[in-house]
Amino acid sequence: MSTRNLYLKTVSVEEAYEIYQNALSKLTALDTELIDVYDSIGRLTSRAVYAVCNSPLYNAAAMDGICVESLKTKNASEENPLILKLGTDFKIVDTGDAIKPPYDAVIMAEDCIQIDENNIKINSPASGWENIRPIGEDIASGDMILPSNHKITPIDIGALIAGGIKSIECYKTKTVGIIPTGDEIVDLNDNLKEGDIVDSNSYMIKSLVEDLGGIGKRYDIVEDDYDKIKSKLLESINANDITIINAGSSAGTEDYTVHILREIGEVFVHGVSIKPGKPVILAIVNNKPVVGLPGYPLSAYINFNLFVKPLLFHVHDNGEEVDAIISKRIVSSLKYREYVRVKIGKIDGKYIASPLNRGAASQMSMVRADGILVIPQNQEGIEAGSISKVRILNKNTNLSNTLLSIGSHDILMDIASDIMSRKYEDVSLSSTHVGSMGGLIALKRNETIIAPIHLLDEISGEYNISIIKEMFGEGKVSLIKGFDRIQGIMVKKNNPCNIKSIEDIVKHRFVNRQKGAGTRVLLDYKLKLLNIDPSSIDGYEKEVSTHTAVAASVASPYIDCGLGVKSAADNMGLDFIEVGIEEYDFAVLTKNLEDPKVKKFIDVIKSTELKTRLDKLGGYSYSHLGNIINI
Amino acid sequence: MSTRNLYLKTVSVEEAYEIYQNALSKLTALDTELIDVYDSIGRLTSRAVYAVCNSPLYNAAAMDGICVESLKTKNASEENPLILKLGTDFKIVDTGDAIKPPYDAVIMAEDCIQIDENNIKINSPASGWENIRPIGEDIASGDMILPSNHKITPIDIGALIAGGIKSIECYKTKTVGIIPTGDEIVDLNDNLKEGDIVDSNSYMIKSLVEDLGGIGKRYDIVEDDYDKIKSKLLESINANDITIINAGSSAGTEDYTVHILREIGEVFVHGVSIKPGKPVILAIVNNKPVVGLPGYPLSAYINFNLFVKPLLFHVHDNGEEVDAIISKRIVSSLKYREYVRVKIGKIDGKYIASPLNRGAASQMSMVRADGILVIPQNQEGIEAGSISKVRILNKNTNLSNTLLSIGSHDILMDIASDIMSRKYEDVSLSSTHVGSMGGLIALKRNETIIAPIHLLDEISGEYNISIIKEMFGEGKVSLIKGFDRIQGIMVKKNNPCNIKSIEDIVKHRFVNRQKGAGTRVLLDYKLKLLNIDPSSIDGYEKEVSTHTAVAASVASPYIDCGLGVKSAADNMGLDFIEVGIEEYDFAVLTKNLEDPKVKKFIDVIKSTELKTRLDKLGGYSYSHLGNIINI
Repeated sequence: MSTRNLYLKTVSVEEAYEIYQNALSKLTALDTELIDVYDSIGRLTSRAVYAVCNSPLYNAAAMDGICVESLKTKNASEENPLILKLGTDFKIVDTGDAIKPPYDAVIMAEDCIQIDENNIKINSPASGWENIRPIGEDIASGDMILPSNHKITPIDIGALIAGGIKSIECYKTKTVGIIPTGDEIVDLNDNLKEGDIVDSNSYMIKSLVEDLGGIGKRYDIVEDDYDKIKSKLLESINANDITIINAGSSAGTEDYTVHILREIGEVFVHGVSIKPGKPVILAIVNNKPVVGLPGYPLSAYINFNLFVKPLLFHVHDNGEEVDAIISKRIVSSLKYREYVRVKIGKIDGKYIASPLNRGAASQMSMVRADGILVIPQNQEGIEAGSISKVRILNKNTNLSNTLLSIGSHDILMDIASDIMSRKYEDVSLSSTHVGSMGGLIALKRNETIIAPIHLLDEISGEYNISIIKEMFGEGKVSLIKGFDRIQGIMVKKNNPCNIKSIEDIVKHRFVNRQKGAGTRVLLDYKLKLLNIDPSSIDGYEKEVSTHTAVAASVASPYIDCGLGVKSAADNMGLDFIEVGIEEYDFAVLTKNLEDPKVKKFIDVIKSTELKTRLDKLGGYSYSHLGNIINI
Repeated sequence: MSTRNLYLKTVSVEEAYEIYQNALSKLTALDTELIDVYDSIGRLTSRAVYAVCNSPLYNAAAMDGICVESLKTKNASEENPLILKLGTDFKIVDTGDAIKPPYDAVIMAEDCIQIDENNIKINSPASGWENIRPIGEDIASGDMILPSNHKITPIDIGALIAGGIKSIECYKTKTVGIIPTGDEIVDLNDNLKEGDIVDSNSYMIKSLVEDLGGIGKRYDIVEDDYDKIKSKLLESINANDITIINAGSSAGTEDYTVHILREIGEVFVHGVSIKPGKPVILAIVNNKPVVGLPGYPLSAYINFNLFVKPLLFHVHDNGEEVDAIISKRIVSSLKYREYVRVKIGKIDGKYIASPLNRGAASQMSMVRADGILVIPQNQEGIEAGSISKVRILNKNTNLSNTLLSIGSHDILMDIASDIMSRKYEDVSLSSTHVGSMGGLIALKRNETIIAPIHLLDEISGEYNISIIKEMFGEGKVSLIKGFDRIQGIMVKKNNPCNIKSIEDIVKHRFVNRQKGAGTRVLLDYKLKLLNIDPSSIDGYEKEVSTHTAVAASVASPYIDCGLGVKSAADNMGLDFIEVGIEEYDFAVLTKNLEDPKVKKFIDVIKSTELKTRLDKLGGYSYSHLGNIINI
């Protein structure tokens, strides 16, 4: 009995995972390769992927129907229906058709009363930009489509192609050497005899590897011989990214594995307190992970999932259905079963689901979604604050480790998310863009951890602090100082309309941001100061929801100007007229400052990488970055 | 506007699914092919797979330790420790080593006190067959490993190889033709212009197909031209198992698809009341399914999952975590996080989880499991009746459609399960084997729908009815009459020990069934009638839990006889001495007789196929099959 191994230290699963991940994190980076987007399903991105074209490419009809000039329809009513003439007043359009001037609205086929081949009657006016999807509404050139370390799904492939991507930098597919060992282990054959154990584990493990997108290489069975096992281990470690040795990891008399691994490398864990599955070995040899899995099938299976699966992909268990608090009222028709995409996060142990853009055309809302909520037919919708079942999409995120951010949009949130997913394997940043005001409302309801905001107090001229005081009082909220960013008017290259200030936009075709967005507040503030009536601006009612979408519109032939940040204008090759500098900060509940996820976020925004990437974009400055102001 | 399609009948998702499945069920059967087991992951079995060898192959040590003769250790105690000598009293064994006579028990290494190289002290006796895995305990030759229509997982591959399977009959991989259509649709290129829509959907769909194990063939984009679309559709339908045509399914002016499909085949559904995703077309042309998916990405994605996914595999959404009532107390060590495999069913809207065999060696318990329950470290176990989170394994079963059966084991339950999964795509039979008594207890607790039983009332000599009356009173339970089956003594080929009756087993090496099994009740009844002391039987304490496992033991060199059914003896090439005929029936709560799943079960047991297959096995007769007795 003297040669038996003893498990000197049996550790818990969590400890084992942490010890091993910590050791692995010191290994050299993985090789990458360029993959054709059409072949990229299941692969892992090694860097963020940015769109290179807009989707839609142009202002497009969102419905089948007719396109009209909205101004001409403004007097239509039930009492005074309006007759429209084909060719003169309207054109028939199908979903997706380009809408060109002078047309600026689409009326759904269902709302048109056909009089004859050339005449149609309408009973209500069309408002400007109604039923039109503005250029870049879904994906604007420069938008981040996927962050680093993201496993590519069929949904992503659709969005990547729509964003003009032809190839992607991915990590090389990992190869896994699998070595079955044991004197009693034999290949399945027709002359099995007493004492033989058929090797089925190595094939199960190979299948598990391939199911996760890896390449499994099974070696021949090695007998219980120190030198033979050692030489086969070194062969596999040399040839593969990961090596699994099966059996030979318990305390039997012929269990050499742990001794060999100690000789040729370093053993970090031997024995984990799980049942079944205790005798697992987690080692590193020549900078590569080597895992000794126990001999019993279930023990091998459980340990594979716990320790080998994360080596293949940063994939967490997922796919379940959870009860989530719905953060925003969702109205639904009694006529349909509706599928609503949601972002999900966990706050104080509760899941919070925020509905995303509901347009069927939005591919990015599918890519961004963490889950899908189904509203049954015969239900009118869901009230804010009520609890619903949400099916988690099978993504490589662990919701408990998601840092929720709801508020204003800025490219820096995409960059922060990318840096976060590379720097901290266990935390991801999930941001929903609802404008600054929406972010503070979510914070008030405890439905977000971070609220990125840039809100000007029209009276004091102060950013962010006044409005927080007004909404929350004192002592509850802290402000993590972010960036000063330059807001201004985006105009076409070389400024053909010669726009110089806010006053000038009245004379030109404008694209606006949605209500509640900090940029919209800034515009409305400036208009008020200048005594300009918003309704005098052509396009004031045409709203898009990101800076990049404003830039895409301005780059199109139908829009002359829009308000936004310099980085978005630069990215689209537009000229930019500075209007003011604003403070883009992050509001958090003071009690959440100690949350490790928040601490990591502060690390990320203070990182040299983020600063370098913002400097490259231009239009940002930072003097108080990461400072905490308790309000 | 006159050429627009109207959705004459928009139906609900459930109606659409049923209409289409009903139409599809009339199509001719699919081609099958023989697949090497090593390449079978993700494939769908076209018929049930039965084991051709035993696992373990022989009586094997379940632990590292020493093997001893249990009788010699019976006086060992703390006060009177026993010293055992190497070679004479014990041999050192590792897990998996064969245990041969005279040894009949294994003592764990942890319970052995080493005195010197040759002597070991023990403080307690070993009981017969302790820590030994009897031959065929996990998989016995003839056991069904997988039913028909089962998607093969990595876990299954392990069990198939352990059961001696080298190749499997599977359905051929389905090919899916994908046709993008539309004048405005273009391939991604460097000269995109206004009005162009980049085709990303067809690639997303191809990826979805391949993610499900199908083969996707994308065709070139077809312009909006009736004849060109028709000809491409016919080309794809001819070349592929399934055809998907993208876009051209809404009410736009150029939407020819539905007209073409009506011309060349039959359209079953056009328009489903979901949002987004309404304009879907479900058709059949030349005996093959053709699906028109809407043009918006999310609409295409949702309809793909609803209507195309089930065409590729009979896969239901799964993988979530549910709250389940635990049907049996589970004790767990404070030292470990424990993974317990469970069978799951839904009764009256509640999930019921029954723990399976907990041995790490049991591959079949992994194959049979519907879910995994994790008992955290620092928790002593789970009480019966309490509610726990159970993670559903990603299998092709829909738990709401699972008919739960808990009770006695008979091969006919495997056959019924196989017939059920082929005959009714939407119902599957899940049986757990705990013996007849265990089945009635589960029925009493409303934790099973069906309880297969064969319980002799020792006083009246009547089967099943007396015991139900005693446990449930009258008016609550009904009995679905099943089969008369012949119980008897299994002995080796040509009966070398010349065993003629129950009296003779006293003189030979016996293998028993577990307490609560009907066969065990029958044995104990016979022994009592004959005034035989059970402890006089060599092997009375050696329990296995199925008829096939008894047969596998009797076929081994160390066991001479065991009690069981004729079919199991025949299957293993054993001789059989009839002892009696017993009635194997199905107890159900009377209120559940109207459950459609129970009705389908009655259909299955009355089916000619089941009778034919039982006749082929031999040892069964049926005169009242399917009759209902209200007790």
